[in-house]
Amino acid sequence: MPPVCPELLLPPWTGEYSEFDSCSLHSDHDRMQFTIELARKNIMHKTGGPFGAAVFERNSGNLASIGVNLVLRSGCSHNHAEMVAIAIAQHRLNSYTLYRSGYPQYELVTSCEPCAMCFGAIIWSGITRLVCGASSADATAAGFDEGPKPANWIEELEKRGIEVVTGVSRNDAKMVFQHYLDSCGVIYNEHPLTITG
Amino acid sequence: MPPVCPELLLPPWTGEYSEFDSCSLHSDHDRMQFTIELARKNIMHKTGGPFGAAVFERNSGNLASIGVNLVLRSGCSHNHAEMVAIAIAQHRLNSYTLYRSGYPQYELVTSCEPCAMCFGAIIWSGITRLVCGASSADATAAGFDEGPKPANWIEELEKRGIEVVTGVSRNDAKMVFQHYLDSCGVIYNEHPLTITG
Repeated sequence: MPPVCPELLLPPWTGEYSEFDSCSLHSDHDRMQFTIELARKNIMHKTGGPFGAAVFERNSGNLASIGVNLVLRSGCSHNHAEMVAIAIAQHRLNSYTLYRSGYPQYELVTSCEPCAMCFGAIIWSGITRLVCGASSADATAAGFDEGPKPANWIEELEKRGIEVVTGVSRNDAKMVFQHYLDSCGVIYNEHPLTITG
Repeated sequence: MPPVCPELLLPPWTGEYSEFDSCSLHSDHDRMQFTIELARKNIMHKTGGPFGAAVFERNSGNLASIGVNLVLRSGCSHNHAEMVAIAIAQHRLNSYTLYRSGYPQYELVTSCEPCAMCFGAIIWSGITRLVCGASSADATAAGFDEGPKPANWIEELEKRGIEVVTGVSRNDAKMVFQHYLDSCGVIYNEHPLTITG
């Protein structure tokens, strides 16, 4: 099979993060501020929706991958920030799951709680911790559509061994939505509903 | 951005389908038998899990894309058959949504009801019809994990303008799972649960 590297999908401005291994962040706050900054830059460079995500090695805080919303840029509705970050982390580890017995565990940090698709993808990804900034309600209030997640989605993740932390730097994460709307960000997916995370 | 074509992920045996445009199938039964055959071939060629999917133009029955489970082959947990078929169809249409006012509408035909991730992805894909073979219960009975979809997932799709048809050639679709298990197909995703669609 010819190699298909999801990193190729990232816009050129992410080049500054190409030395992933040199970045370690040790608190939920710092990791969240990092993903919020990705979302801000994705707006500033007009390369996609106001969503950022990153995968970190849980204990060391080493950055494994970054993701931003690339739906419009890539022409594919799957490419939410979380999906991109997970795909790149798996590609770099050469493993279809980030959970490997005897190896470090990984966590996904996302500037907004996952949509219905990303919620399912998180379960298959092998991450063992999820850290969220803005809430689904914040996203919905700003006009974005998170889709029909189960009401008890956090419990469903926790049942499967995935620790969930919500509301980290929530106000900063919310402000990115407003910044996107103020900058007349493209509203995509006119059917069946509107914008997605 | 460098082009990244999801068709590159398909295994060589799918080359026989490269002339997508020459294939038109006019009934749910024929379209489902086609996707079940994809699942069978994916097992026979040992290129992935026992799941096949395809996107068709609803009225003409023209084939827009095919998909098979490529999780192990691609090293990415996102690559369920439905995800692959949707990504290729969007790539070929050069559109992040398959719903475009004034253009033909598209449907996804899948050998098994979607898992939690694919359920969400279907909502963002722009398809307006979903046709399923084996049920989630069939998949679960065979040892596969469909993840936590909302109990009323069909209603959630229909609310968003996506017609849903289930149980088409269900027995044939179920038999593919048994064939996979008999052939000692790889059981992946040992954590947090087992195999996914």
